[in-house]
Formats: sequence, C-alpha cells, structure tokens
Amino acid sequence: MNILITGGAGFLGTLLARRLLQRGTLCGQPIDTLTLTDLHPVADPGLLADPRVRRDAGDLLQRLDSLMAGDHDAVFHLASAVSGECEADFALGLRSNLEATRRLLEALRAQQARTGQAPLFFFASSVAVYGGDEAVPLPPVVRDDTLPTPQSSYGIQKFICEQLVADYTRKGYIDGRAARLMTVSVRPGRPNGAASGFLSGIVREPLAGIDAICPVDPSTAVALSSPDTTIAGILRVAEASRAEFGGRTALNLPALSVTVAEMLQALERSAGQAVAARVTVQPDAAIARIVGGWPSRFESERARRLGLPADASFDAVITQFRALAR
Amino acid sequence: MNILITGGAGFLGTLLARRLLQRGTLCGQPIDTLTLTDLHPVADPGLLADPRVRRDAGDLLQRLDSLMAGDHDAVFHLASAVSGECEADFALGLRSNLEATRRLLEALRAQQARTGQAPLFFFASSVAVYGGDEAVPLPPVVRDDTLPTPQSSYGIQKFICEQLVADYTRKGYIDGRAARLMTVSVRPGRPNGAASGFLSGIVREPLAGIDAICPVDPSTAVALSSPDTTIAGILRVAEASRAEFGGRTALNLPALSVTVAEMLQALERSAGQAVAARVTVQPDAAIARIVGGWPSRFESERARRLGLPADASFDAVITQFRALAR
Repeated sequence: MNILITGGAGFLGTLLARRLLQRGTLCGQPIDTLTLTDLHPVADPGLLADPRVRRDAGDLLQRLDSLMAGDHDAVFHLASAVSGECEADFALGLRSNLEATRRLLEALRAQQARTGQAPLFFFASSVAVYGGDEAVPLPPVVRDDTLPTPQSSYGIQKFICEQLVADYTRKGYIDGRAARLMTVSVRPGRPNGAASGFLSGIVREPLAGIDAICPVDPSTAVALSSPDTTIAGILRVAEASRAEFGGRTALNLPALSVTVAEMLQALERSAGQAVAARVTVQPDAAIARIVGGWPSRFESERARRLGLPADASFDAVITQFRALAR
Repeated sequence: MNILITGGAGFLGTLLARRLLQRGTLCGQPIDTLTLTDLHPVADPGLLADPRVRRDAGDLLQRLDSLMAGDHDAVFHLASAVSGECEADFALGLRSNLEATRRLLEALRAQQARTGQAPLFFFASSVAVYGGDEAVPLPPVVRDDTLPTPQSSYGIQKFICEQLVADYTRKGYIDGRAARLMTVSVRPGRPNGAASGFLSGIVREPLAGIDAICPVDPSTAVALSSPDTTIAGILRVAEASRAEFGGRTALNLPALSVTVAEMLQALERSAGQAVAARVTVQPDAAIARIVGGWPSRFESERARRLGLPADASFDAVITQFRALAR
C-alpha cells in the first residue's frame, strides 16, 4: 500500500507517519511507501531513516503534478494554511485550503478513472467550522447534526472541502472521510502565536520552567483532544467501513470539555504548586473573544459508535505529555 | 443604480428583470441600467425595448472580464447549470456553478477594493441542498438550522457557494444574501426534462389541451412556490437590512406543502374534470426516488419574520398561472 500524507512534516503529520510505520499496515494492508509532502522538509530523524519514507517539500499546488505521477492507495490530507493566516490573507486561504484540496481531489478522480480503484481519502477538518455570532448564536451543545456557521475564512474553507469530499465520495471517485479535529493540547514545541496556543503553553511552558500567560478568564470552557487521542481518531475514521462511518457528512472527533481553571488545577496536581504558579492570568480581550466563540461541549454520537472515547481527564493529558517529553 | 442579473434570459431572470423595471427602483434607488447576461441571448420583447437594459450572451466565465469592466451596485446571481446536467457531467457543474461563482465573487472583491463600496449580492441557492439517504435520513420538517446533506453535485455546489457568499460578506467584500428557492410551479413554456418538470407539466399541459404523465404516486408530498411568490421572496431578501436577514446563513424561502393528489384536485376545481382527466399516473421509479428525496415540509421562521408568506393554496397558484397565460 502506498500512502500520501500532506502536511507530513507538521506536528500531527509526523505523529501520524510514525504511528503508521510502527503499525506497518493500514486497513490490514502492509505499507510499502509513505510519502510525506509539506511546505517544510521532513526533519524527524526516525522518519528520515525509514526506507519506506519518501520526502517531498514545497507548495502543495506546485508539487501536485509530480506527487500524483504515481498512484496513492490512501491519502491523509492534513496540509492547511492556519486560521490566523487565512484571516490576514484572504487569497492565501482560498489558494492553500480550497484550491489545493480541489486540485488534489481532481487528481484523485483522474487516478480513479485510470485505475478503477477509489483511493481512501482522509480529510482533516476542524472544530473551527463551528462558531456563533450575535445573529446566530452557537447552541450550548454541539451535536453531529448541528449546522456549522463558520466565523472565519479557515472554517468556511474547511466546511467547503468537507462538501467536496462528500460529493467525490458519493460519485465513487474517492472513499472519503472528513473528521473535525478538536484543539490539540498539549502540543510540544514552541509557542506558535495561534489564538489557541495558550491551551498548550500554559502546561508546556511551566513544565519547562518558563513563565506563561493565560489570556482568558479561567472559567472559560474549551474542548480539547490530546495528540494520541487525535491520531487514534484519525486512524479509526480512516479504517472504518462506510457503514460504520455513517453517511458522508464530516464527523466530530471526541472532545474533552474542561475549563482553563480545571487545566491549571490538573497541572498543579501533576507538577506541584510552584510549577502551576508560573502561569499568570492576564486577559487579552481579542483572544478571549475568539476562544469564547468556540464550542466547548459536544455530544458526538458517531464518534461514540466508532468506539472513540475522549481523553479521560486533563490529568491524563498531562501525563501523556510528560511521558512524551521524557 | 446599476444592476447585473446572471441567468438573465432564463425564466426567473426574465421575471425578475421585468419586475425590477416595473418598480424602477431597488433599495429605494432608481435603476439606471440593468445588465442581463445569460448563456442564451435575451429574447423577451419588453426587455429588449427598455432603454435601461443591457444584453450580454455567452459563457459566464468567459464573459466575466468584460462584464466586470463596469461597476455593479447589485448583482442577482441566478445563472447555474441545472441538477441533471451536473449529475451527468461532473466537471461542468464544478465549472459553471462553483468556479463561475468564485470568479464572480473575486471580481466583486476587486470592485469593492476599487470603490470602497460592498455591492449587494443575491445568490439563488436551492432546496436541493437538502436530501437524505439511508445513513442520514432527512428530518420530517426542515427548519432554518437543519443541516443540509446534499445528495447531488448541484446541491453540493449550491451549498458551497452559500458558504463563499457568507465569508465574502463577513469580510465586507460584498453585502451578500443567499436564499434557497423552492421548486417553482407552475412554470410556463415547454417540458424541460428535469425530474421536477412534471410539477409544472401536470397543470400546464392539460390546460393547453395536451395529455400529461404524472410519474409519482399522487400521495407524494412536495414543497412548491409560484413564480410570483419566488420573485417576491428574492426582492424582499435583497432589500432586507442585515439585521432583518439575520446572520449570513442562507435562508429558506417559503414553501407551499401539497401532495400531487391535492394539485390534481385543484386543477379539477379550476378547469373541470375533463382537463384534469388528461393527467395519467404512470409511476417512474427513478423520478419517484429523486422527488421522494426532497423535503416537503418546512418551518421557515426567518422567511416568516421577513413577512414572506407561502402561496395560500395550489388553487391560488393555478389562478396565477392562468392569468399569466391569458
């Protein structure tokens, strides 16, 4: 089996690639090659050393012809311009998220016409499809059939791509599954300036002996998923039968609903008061408004039917992060 | 005020153009020019004679540069490849519905950057965004916040364009409003081979002394709107304030819910038993399946708040059609 991961050098792409190579199979088929394409070159030493790995770096739209010269049995499409970029540069979002996905799907349609096989296609959508405003408030609990009303170009583009994936699947061009990822916490690495960045930073930085700012009121409720739970969700959705997946509409991956105060309490339980004290609450109205617009409570029946639990607690999420960091 | 109607030589485009010229104003501003662009040339003598009318014929994507050389204060975007075409020719639907709308919106974004004014933009979406299948059945009553799960490429493309209109509006590039049109009945003219065609044909043909086939069980429930009610809805939505429109999500125009049997009874009341007897029920499984997949009952609170009633009865719809035909 030949697999392509777009965004393959990113945090989730790297984790997914490692997990696939560890398992050695996808949908019961041995993995022959794993192509990782990304704007940035793959740098993970373990991935670079694996003979199954093919690397490709550059703008996805420009790399597409070359990438699609060979056939892919499965594609994990994780590449995306992020929310802040799309808000700042409208044309960039249209190009990197909408146009790149369209072109990728068209290339897979041509592949299906050539081979007679509909490739597996996982699309990483986002909880950012949900949002409310004055006119149309977000319901208190988001369900699988809650109508998304995206409040950002990024969310709009993700929601549009979900529709394309559904239609290419209905037509038999791909075997597509879109799943909406929650905010991933705790992400390793450096602060990335995203509005959601503090949801990792208020744990990661104190554990590294660095002071951190919490820019929202601690009573703010958020919906999170640990890296492990997120990757498990992606693989379960990719390997589900069509009947298990249930329709062609994007599925909400499981979410742990916690308040920021509960996150900080878990940090204190895990690492002690001195570490937790490195977090200073210093509200930032702009970030508070963005984060407050995100859904924090989900009832995700489809994820439950797939046997996908949310993280058990934020204590468990911290334990996972500290084991990874060790 | 300079207005552009795409699909301006079609049935609804022609009706809308006539109504606008009769009124002479849109949003309280006098109409200086009304540009009608369509794949086919405008043929309506009344429109051709009006000095405010500009005609333009050809493929919208190819005409766009020339059309957008001048500024448009308001655009009614009705042009679309229809459902059957999009199902038969996937690339055509992507091009005529998705790509043409994207390019039109990009041209209006450029206009807004040039003029500082966000043009009014009405997008004709469709009840075809709704549909159900085995995995995700359609709810018995469709509400404003019912999640569309389109079951056709046409429905997917309309739903995608709704999202683009919402985001261009949020960004201030256009003042966009998308409204979902119901099946329009009774359409004048000749049978057009659409799956919904019989919903006009079973009235129009018998009244013209021609036999007609009803391809579905008469107990089939459908959601209809007369031409007058549809045009009134388009104009009300276009002229609503943003607060009245309520958000940026597409609005369901009002629907008259009737069974085909009730339509035939109304025909008999209007024109007598001999006319109604020209309709023969001859079920066609393919058409019955398509029509049976459409929603037939709506609760459209947003349309009600705009003061938009559905047609009072199918008797009234027939009366409207007979007055037009006279």
